[in-house]
Amino acid sequence: MATRTRVAIIGAGPAGLLLSHLLHLEGIESVLVERQSAEYVRARIRAGILEASTVELLKEAGVGDRLAAESMEHRGIHLQWPGERHHLDFVRLAGRSVSVYGQTEVTKDLMLARERAGRQAFYEASEVELHDVGTDRPSVTFVDSDGRPQRLEAEVIAGCDGFHGPSRASIPDPATWEREYPFAWLGVLADVAPSTDELIYAWHPDGFAMHSMRSPRVSRFYLQVRPDEDISEWSDDRIWTALTTRLEAGQPGWRLETGPITEKSVLPMRSFVATPMRHGRLFLAGDAAHIVPPTGAKGLNLAVADVALLARALTAWLREGSAELAESYSDTALRRVWRCTHFSWWMTTMLHRHGDDFDAQLQLSQLRRTVSSEAAATELAENYAGLPIGYR
Amino acid sequence: MATRTRVAIIGAGPAGLLLSHLLHLEGIESVLVERQSAEYVRARIRAGILEASTVELLKEAGVGDRLAAESMEHRGIHLQWPGERHHLDFVRLAGRSVSVYGQTEVTKDLMLARERAGRQAFYEASEVELHDVGTDRPSVTFVDSDGRPQRLEAEVIAGCDGFHGPSRASIPDPATWEREYPFAWLGVLADVAPSTDELIYAWHPDGFAMHSMRSPRVSRFYLQVRPDEDISEWSDDRIWTALTTRLEAGQPGWRLETGPITEKSVLPMRSFVATPMRHGRLFLAGDAAHIVPPTGAKGLNLAVADVALLARALTAWLREGSAELAESYSDTALRRVWRCTHFSWWMTTMLHRHGDDFDAQLQLSQLRRTVSSEAAATELAENYAGLPIGYR
Repeated sequence: MATRTRVAIIGAGPAGLLLSHLLHLEGIESVLVERQSAEYVRARIRAGILEASTVELLKEAGVGDRLAAESMEHRGIHLQWPGERHHLDFVRLAGRSVSVYGQTEVTKDLMLARERAGRQAFYEASEVELHDVGTDRPSVTFVDSDGRPQRLEAEVIAGCDGFHGPSRASIPDPATWEREYPFAWLGVLADVAPSTDELIYAWHPDGFAMHSMRSPRVSRFYLQVRPDEDISEWSDDRIWTALTTRLEAGQPGWRLETGPITEKSVLPMRSFVATPMRHGRLFLAGDAAHIVPPTGAKGLNLAVADVALLARALTAWLREGSAELAESYSDTALRRVWRCTHFSWWMTTMLHRHGDDFDAQLQLSQLRRTVSSEAAATELAENYAGLPIGYR
Repeated sequence: MATRTRVAIIGAGPAGLLLSHLLHLEGIESVLVERQSAEYVRARIRAGILEASTVELLKEAGVGDRLAAESMEHRGIHLQWPGERHHLDFVRLAGRSVSVYGQTEVTKDLMLARERAGRQAFYEASEVELHDVGTDRPSVTFVDSDGRPQRLEAEVIAGCDGFHGPSRASIPDPATWEREYPFAWLGVLADVAPSTDELIYAWHPDGFAMHSMRSPRVSRFYLQVRPDEDISEWSDDRIWTALTTRLEAGQPGWRLETGPITEKSVLPMRSFVATPMRHGRLFLAGDAAHIVPPTGAKGLNLAVADVALLARALTAWLREGSAELAESYSDTALRRVWRCTHFSWWMTTMLHRHGDDFDAQLQLSQLRRTVSSEAAATELAENYAGLPIGYR
């Protein structure tokens, strides 16, 4: 069966859903094609920190009501190492706050908006293939959830299908950069009220630890572990012991509250960038083109920034016939991508144990400088709280 | 022959000479013991950038007249990569300038002050050994330039004898940190007027290059080469070709003037820190305790900061009987040492080609950020122009 639309969007995670929504607001019709089921996408646990400009964009796009009601606004973060805990106040340093609101919640809000507007989506699509992206008549073929072959003809294809999706392979001769880190995160969800008002990033001789949160009753924790860590070796007891050791070291007298662990998983750490982000009528956005390690919480925000830029470029092109922003999309997006790639790498290498004892001293020296110098603190704050959407 | 003094200073480079001078101003007598000849020390070519606080200290100590007349004050540096050259204005960013004035000139001024004051120095001393530094009666033995055994009895020994001197070995069980870099500098002196008003730090795919200067008629250049580089493979022609390629890339139309090369040598790049910097009656200062790679020009300035702190501590101890500053000397000095160690490592790893293409992109991303963000530019400027002597 053949369907005709203006923009075929591959991937219905937050990037694809948001692009579809922003285009809809401009009167541009799109169709989403997603490999997973709606339930799977809705439940996928990912990032939880939204930059100020991400929050602003979601609110302006009319999908920010629940976010405004339920998110927790944070003025900054705590940065610690044994014996010292310091608060960095982003609002004072950079004039912007961040919001704690899970990616799952953003996805739910965007799915609801899609359903309300009656925008079309194919979930559980298999054998997704892109065709003729270098011509004026690109298309996507796939097999739908009922096993029927489908053909989607479009003016433009947006590849929002993540690192493992098929879109990136349609960019001929891409340049790619990749870095595997010699460590991973053991991520934990626990039914316990956070022991902290704002996130704690902890350097510790045993490895990095982080105290985050999902709600006033659900805490999120991360522990630096080996990339090949066997999760079955991490009993709840062992996890709490490690978290307590690493997190309580920063501030004598401060206590970590524990509770039932409801989810645990090992998250790999990778930096990846592929360029260009556009070929002909195919545009990549988000994880399809780049991956950052989670330290610094840039992944989702970077995808949102790509999509904001792409929605503007496609609107100008498809509605007004002006291709200028579409032509410059890749270069413009990549400036922010490299900024966030560098920042995420910097936060990651500053906070995780790796290398030798000299590296550890460099990390501590950088941490001390970051909390004692206005310039160094501001540099972290501006990057963390997020650069403007149109950052050049 | 036995000589009695209050402070035995091992090493008559700028650190030892300055300590001797500062103690003299406080009425504390010292004797210098130096392995090399005075002529050798006077001619040794080293760093050429003085921080504002170094300049201030030399002037206050009465050895800054020629410096005031002959040094070139620089408001900042140029930072470049292919296609872009940017000026960082330290005066605007950090409220401080730096001065171009060779280490050889500082040494000459301090030697003249020593001779005028009639302070004693043993040059060409061999077999220098430290004794009983853990007791109240430390001493130094050596063979003087006439082949006579000498014994210097003192209340305190100051080890200002550089990385290869004997002092550091008298600290029992020191903790040490070391990093060898996978590159070196080919340093060049040339009889040609500088082609630039202020220093140029250049990132280039072929490797780092730098345009510095010694005077309005003498230029100093550096090229990133391999650590095991055979200097005989670098003809003057090859040097000028490499310098021209790397330095002219930053600004189309800008031309590098060439001239006769009068000196060339390969400088290794190393980070090294040994702690503690004090044991009993022995105090280390400068390269005896720490080495930084030359990028960022911290070596001499860090030695001067150590010496300023040590002179104050010894004055309080030997003149007023208050040991507090002497007790805290190592910890206080090391805070600045680690700050400068980190900054020098950061400048070095940002500007030299190493690692893979991802590292190159991280470098370019950091460079772009440094010239476009006020916070990032200020962070470089404050560190480069120099932290206050009493930095904690």
